[in-house]
Amino acid sequence: MNKIGGFAVKIATPPMGWNSWDCYGAGVTEEIVRQNADYMAEHLKQFGWEYVVVDIQWSAPNAKTHEYEPFADLCMDEYSRLIPAENRFPSSAGGKGFGPLAEYVHSLGLKFGIHIMRGIPRQAVHRNTKILGSDHTAREIAKTNSICAWNTDMYGVNPEKEGAKEYYESLFKLYAEWGVDFIKCDDIARELPHEESELILLSESLRGCGRKMILSLSPGPALPEKAELYKQTANMWRITDDFWDKWELLYQMFERCERWAGHSGAGHWPDADMLPVGAILQDYSPENRSAFSYEEQKVMMTLWSIFRSPLMIGSELTKLDEKTLSLLTNTDIIAMNKNSRYAHQVWRREVAGTEIVLWAAACSEGGLYAAVFNIGEAACDIEIPLTDLEVYEPVVCKELWTAEESKSENALKISLAPHDAAAYLLK
Amino acid sequence: MNKIGGFAVKIATPPMGWNSWDCYGAGVTEEIVRQNADYMAEHLKQFGWEYVVVDIQWSAPNAKTHEYEPFADLCMDEYSRLIPAENRFPSSAGGKGFGPLAEYVHSLGLKFGIHIMRGIPRQAVHRNTKILGSDHTAREIAKTNSICAWNTDMYGVNPEKEGAKEYYESLFKLYAEWGVDFIKCDDIARELPHEESELILLSESLRGCGRKMILSLSPGPALPEKAELYKQTANMWRITDDFWDKWELLYQMFERCERWAGHSGAGHWPDADMLPVGAILQDYSPENRSAFSYEEQKVMMTLWSIFRSPLMIGSELTKLDEKTLSLLTNTDIIAMNKNSRYAHQVWRREVAGTEIVLWAAACSEGGLYAAVFNIGEAACDIEIPLTDLEVYEPVVCKELWTAEESKSENALKISLAPHDAAAYLLK
Amino acid sequence: MNKIGGFAVKIATPPMGWNSWDCYGAGVTEEIVRQNADYMAEHLKQFGWEYVVVDIQWSAPNAKTHEYEPFADLCMDEYSRLIPAENRFPSSAGGKGFGPLAEYVHSLGLKFGIHIMRGIPRQAVHRNTKILGSDHTAREIAKTNSICAWNTDMYGVNPEKEGAKEYYESLFKLYAEWGVDFIKCDDIARELPHEESELILLSESLRGCGRKMILSLSPGPALPEKAELYKQTANMWRITDDFWDKWELLYQMFERCERWAGHSGAGHWPDADMLPVGAILQDYSPENRSAFSYEEQKVMMTLWSIFRSPLMIGSELTKLDEKTLSLLTNTDIIAMNKNSRYAHQVWRREVAGTEIVLWAAACSEGGLYAAVFNIGEAACDIEIPLTDLEVYEPVVCKELWTAEESKSENALKISLAPHDAAAYLLK
Amino acid sequence: MNKIGGFAVKIATPPMGWNSWDCYGAGVTEEIVRQNADYMAEHLKQFGWEYVVVDIQWSAPNAKTHEYEPFADLCMDEYSRLIPAENRFPSSAGGKGFGPLAEYVHSLGLKFGIHIMRGIPRQAVHRNTKILGSDHTAREIAKTNSICAWNTDMYGVNPEKEGAKEYYESLFKLYAEWGVDFIKCDDIARELPHEESELILLSESLRGCGRKMILSLSPGPALPEKAELYKQTANMWRITDDFWDKWELLYQMFERCERWAGHSGAGHWPDADMLPVGAILQDYSPENRSAFSYEEQKVMMTLWSIFRSPLMIGSELTKLDEKTLSLLTNTDIIAMNKNSRYAHQVWRREVAGTEIVLWAAACSEGGLYAAVFNIGEAACDIEIPLTDLEVYEPVVCKELWTAEESKSENALKISLAPHDAAAYLLK
Repeated sequence: MNKIGGFAVKIATPPMGWNSWDCYGAGVTEEIVRQNADYMAEHLKQFGWEYVVVDIQWSAPNAKTHEYEPFADLCMDEYSRLIPAENRFPSSAGGKGFGPLAEYVHSLGLKFGIHIMRGIPRQAVHRNTKILGSDHTAREIAKTNSICAWNTDMYGVNPEKEGAKEYYESLFKLYAEWGVDFIKCDDIARELPHEESELILLSESLRGCGRKMILSLSPGPALPEKAELYKQTANMWRITDDFWDKWELLYQMFERCERWAGHSGAGHWPDADMLPVGAILQDYSPENRSAFSYEEQKVMMTLWSIFRSPLMIGSELTKLDEKTLSLLTNTDIIAMNKNSRYAHQVWRREVAGTEIVLWAAACSEGGLYAAVFNIGEAACDIEIPLTDLEVYEPVVCKELWTAEESKSENALKISLAPHDAAAYLLK
Repeated sequence: MNKIGGFAVKIATPPMGWNSWDCYGAGVTEEIVRQNADYMAEHLKQFGWEYVVVDIQWSAPNAKTHEYEPFADLCMDEYSRLIPAENRFPSSAGGKGFGPLAEYVHSLGLKFGIHIMRGIPRQAVHRNTKILGSDHTAREIAKTNSICAWNTDMYGVNPEKEGAKEYYESLFKLYAEWGVDFIKCDDIARELPHEESELILLSESLRGCGRKMILSLSPGPALPEKAELYKQTANMWRITDDFWDKWELLYQMFERCERWAGHSGAGHWPDADMLPVGAILQDYSPENRSAFSYEEQKVMMTLWSIFRSPLMIGSELTKLDEKTLSLLTNTDIIAMNKNSRYAHQVWRREVAGTEIVLWAAACSEGGLYAAVFNIGEAACDIEIPLTDLEVYEPVVCKELWTAEESKSENALKISLAPHDAAAYLLK
Repeated sequence: MNKIGGFAVKIATPPMGWNSWDCYGAGVTEEIVRQNADYMAEHLKQFGWEYVVVDIQWSAPNAKTHEYEPFADLCMDEYSRLIPAENRFPSSAGGKGFGPLAEYVHSLGLKFGIHIMRGIPRQAVHRNTKILGSDHTAREIAKTNSICAWNTDMYGVNPEKEGAKEYYESLFKLYAEWGVDFIKCDDIARELPHEESELILLSESLRGCGRKMILSLSPGPALPEKAELYKQTANMWRITDDFWDKWELLYQMFERCERWAGHSGAGHWPDADMLPVGAILQDYSPENRSAFSYEEQKVMMTLWSIFRSPLMIGSELTKLDEKTLSLLTNTDIIAMNKNSRYAHQVWRREVAGTEIVLWAAACSEGGLYAAVFNIGEAACDIEIPLTDLEVYEPVVCKELWTAEESKSENALKISLAPHDAAAYLLK
Repeated sequence: MNKIGGFAVKIATPPMGWNSWDCYGAGVTEEIVRQNADYMAEHLKQFGWEYVVVDIQWSAPNAKTHEYEPFADLCMDEYSRLIPAENRFPSSAGGKGFGPLAEYVHSLGLKFGIHIMRGIPRQAVHRNTKILGSDHTAREIAKTNSICAWNTDMYGVNPEKEGAKEYYESLFKLYAEWGVDFIKCDDIARELPHEESELILLSESLRGCGRKMILSLSPGPALPEKAELYKQTANMWRITDDFWDKWELLYQMFERCERWAGHSGAGHWPDADMLPVGAILQDYSPENRSAFSYEEQKVMMTLWSIFRSPLMIGSELTKLDEKTLSLLTNTDIIAMNKNSRYAHQVWRREVAGTEIVLWAAACSEGGLYAAVFNIGEAACDIEIPLTDLEVYEPVVCKELWTAEESKSENALKISLAPHDAAAYLLK
């Protein structure tokens, strides 16, 4: 049993926002961030979208795509802390860091987030640079054989070394000064149990920094046996490796969500990852668009919402088409993401020649959510007995995508294409 | 994915009743069954208790204790079907089977159940006796190397053999004629996947017999990866090996219940096994009593009820003391067993020097159930923030064991002895 | 570590003989046994072949093929011991058992063996028959849930029960009276560790019976971690499930032999199973012949011989063709089977576009055996450096299949077809 | 199956020598190496001892003990190759590397070896230094997340990168110029399968360097399933983690040796690690001596010798006492190390209240080696039947430690203290 206290920030509903990874990889620039923030403020904010998150390697002057450059030289301050590359984030000039950009995002009524990697920069260790508030140096706190499997930027930090605590505290103090609201910390979620003590130190340091920040852990898949630890240290944690616009990955998410559903709660959400919709992979070509069909995107939005996953749009927002936009601004679906409670898979069966999944959840404003997914390869007309939902009398059902209301005597009657979904509020 | 249809009987709430195993092992007699049924009708029926179940080896004339006699000669009809031993169940004389006893139990407003073992009697196979409705014989349908690990009475039945279906149909036809309402089938729940096809055949045969009977599967632990199959074939299935009055077993049940909570639903309940309370092990000595403390019994009743386990009393009912009786007749707790929905463990943590577990569930009549368990070894005074339950405003709380109501501003304030529990309805 | 003593019979070289299984399954008759014994005495005895073994189910009057009849009625004496079916073994009439047949085989200068199953006959348990030399009965010593996975004849015997020792002693006393020289015991070699104590009891009983009998354990694969136990309890044990005339099985034998090579020794040999050569499966059709090519049979004989496997011919002997006969009567190869010591795989590599395996062994009469196998799919001309055999000077090499001698300066030069082998004695 | 060819150097007998690790850790100096070489030439050479090996971190100016300094600055040439620290190896001044020291060792009639770590120096990667014979740089060939678990000196080299081959070739070219005869390569033996391709590249580069060098792989335990690869790429490979003077480690070596015995051969030996005898751990205190008793050292020398492990003395040689020296200069034991063939464990049993292990091997000069170990905790008088060694007639036995000869009729009669051994040559 875990002994640590509940030190994660408490918020009531899962974060919603935009993240630069799916569209720009490691190469996003300040200009792009501002244009997406502007779009969000104008078109999405009223639906609940609020976080604008700069993803990985913002301190690398030459980062341009989804590929990482091994042993890249990074921008760093004298205290072993990475700072934005000025050529990519001009407003950071003069030691201002992300302060001006955060201020701009706040001015739009939105919140600002950044990506970090667990640990201390490799180059700080090799240059043996200083740690703010400590006589110890980078070399002394590095965990010598803890390095990320896919990126050379950092060494892990050994929490047992003197100076480790001061390093992490100095980091979050800096981010608090900048006005950061959201930290996506990488190379840490699936790195348990061996990096457990570093996660705890990091989480405690964040909590003590004096500013409320959401802590999001990557990459997945997180370890189910560590659920209690994630809940106590973080607000969200990835239950999957990077999720992209492939049906196979979406199909697999049903099993992941079933396993993790019981761990959603006040301020802590298993995270099914970003929504790869619209204009993604823009660093490779401005023509790129999500490979998911409209119906598959409904499947995704329905599952993410009843499951209460955080929602992070992967698209270049200014290129959103009407149909995709409609999926992201359906107020009933977004309400389900906020009000769903105790969501769980009721069953998953072969029915009528296809594979059907039924989820249910309580609605915190009364009534019952139900979601029906056709994840097989055949269209179907099916009836789900209300008793399967433990409903023993007629109810009024609202289908959330169509907004149609009807009275059900004893079954939900549904027609679904393959890779399609329906969502209901029963009252 | 499983292809079979939903063939289990649908009932709305978990069965409640009495079973002869904990007090009499394999040796219960008609006289004892009648005396317990009489007691139930008089003292327990009004609280929801209704099933009276005769456990294992009622066809063995010499069975007397919890020990099985290897290769015992059993009473059997000409069609390879076991029948009650007349010396133990006199009313069965003249080929009437359990008909007269079932009729008596029904006359009290109660329901009647029996235990069976998967398969066909060993002695039928060796005598190569007939199967009703088939030209095939016992020897032909036996699965030659499928025998129970702890009892020699039966061979498994091979569903691929002609005559297998007729055998199982003839069994349930007989039980329907007797008026049986509840079948506890043994040597089948943890025997998956190798006996999966026999479970399906047995379940289909029961469903087709023309009488509504609850199907309960033993022994546990059932296999989590087969949850969907249990839900479709049975009404309840054991999630544990035999549960007895030892704290260690009760402690372990928290993990089992957490794992299985998502699979409770309409007509299908993971089963935490009988309640070993009061006068148990009566076949060894009439002095024997449960080793559980009063508080431990509260822990058990609270967990079983919020989890919605079926409730089966193990005690000789006529010897129930007042305090134990009060635990079994608390109307709020029994209501929780019936009305709890979407129960799940919220967290399990070391708090205030002891180990605390928090469960929550929706109440189907409105509001929210919460249960707090102290499963550590120190007494504690703790406060559970209402936000942990995703309650963000003051609520009225009723503690179900004491019936005390109070208003909570932002936390549940609880004092618990070690091995103790509290249960709340929040509205 | 195992505490038991070395109770197996010591003989210097692996048994060679004939076994009825490959040609007649469970259905061999006395007439067939006599005709094969006659053939062996006349044509094979001078090459070292000496055991004539009657395989499974000689007590079943109706056994005819390789299929077992479930719950077959078997011939049994009053003491729960199986005896030959008189209709198949006429000389056993009048309670003489296998005595007359053994006597006949002995009169030819050969030795006589029988197959048995671990345990006590199922029908003895159900009839609860007597045990010679004990007041206990069959039912009392049966291990109730220990039955063979593929045959219904027996229950295991529980060595902890009184009467178990007397039962096994009475068995081997009977076989000693009959004049049996070789026991092939089935359902016991791969049944460890759960049937370990029964193996030990059986082995001790055999050893105490007053007659020297070889003990052979089946079926395989035996468990490598139990090698020490097999060595102490038995003379040979199967390292494979039934071996038949399929290249895939022969290919896999190389890995099995490599693993087990270190465990051959004085009186104890890992057993690669019968040689499915010549006229096999005669119970299905007299036309059936081995599917192995001549070269594949050379591969088999070479591997079995350098590895020192026992050699048991599976063919109906009277139908042996000249070419097959030549493989079984090559005196150099048979000498290798007797004189090979410390055999082991030297390497296994892809060489010259095919897969080559090199084995070496010391020759107990001086010199060094080497065997080269082409188990890939291409023909090859290769040179094996003598240094690979730790030979650092020129040697005289005799190829055993061709009897050609040559002097090697520094390499063995070999041409091999796919699925072919060569064997050498280097001096 | 492995496709690579046999590229390891072929020598006829296992290397024997001295290695600085057990006595000086990472801190050995030229002066110490010379004094041990002098001693070897004078007192040990005539018994077969010949290699003088400088162990780990000879390029670290500050290395002093068995502890490694994380991120230590190492001496390196302009081509990313580590060179000796001049302060510790003065003769290396002026770019001469280990040339002068090797020359000195050769002048004594001995051979010279060095330790290396797989990979390219960390500091070369961070400084992005050149690679001899290639336009590529250190940073480009580093395998970014392949670092040693216990030492920060190196990154692995990615064999798929251009420049990788040139780097390794430049390394061994340098060592050849120095006159190195023996390479102990670390962080590579148990690092399979993930570093398999680096091992192959390294081995091929060594083989192509134009000078015959022994390749020794560390650390252990090596992977049994990779035996064929070790045999083809190296001359010796560690079958154990670091071996020290603890009985428990010696006890465990019996199982390791049994598993690996079949893989000793011409030029390739499983390596049971250094002999921690005499004055070891001298970097901590000149008073330190091996904790093994004299008899335990006999056990070790007997096992290592019949098994044909390489023999590397761990002691400061100049401090060897007479008794230890006698163990290292027993000509019969050393002859067994050279002449043993096909060694294997015959059995391991509880005999006479203690645990006895019997090994046997052929002697390449005729006759048979046998070794008997008492690895239990009681003294014993035992008789080993000659038939256990497959000897069926009387033999002359020479016990190698006492040099006593006797004739054995049918058994070896042996008295052994606990943790003691005897070794025999039977003719």
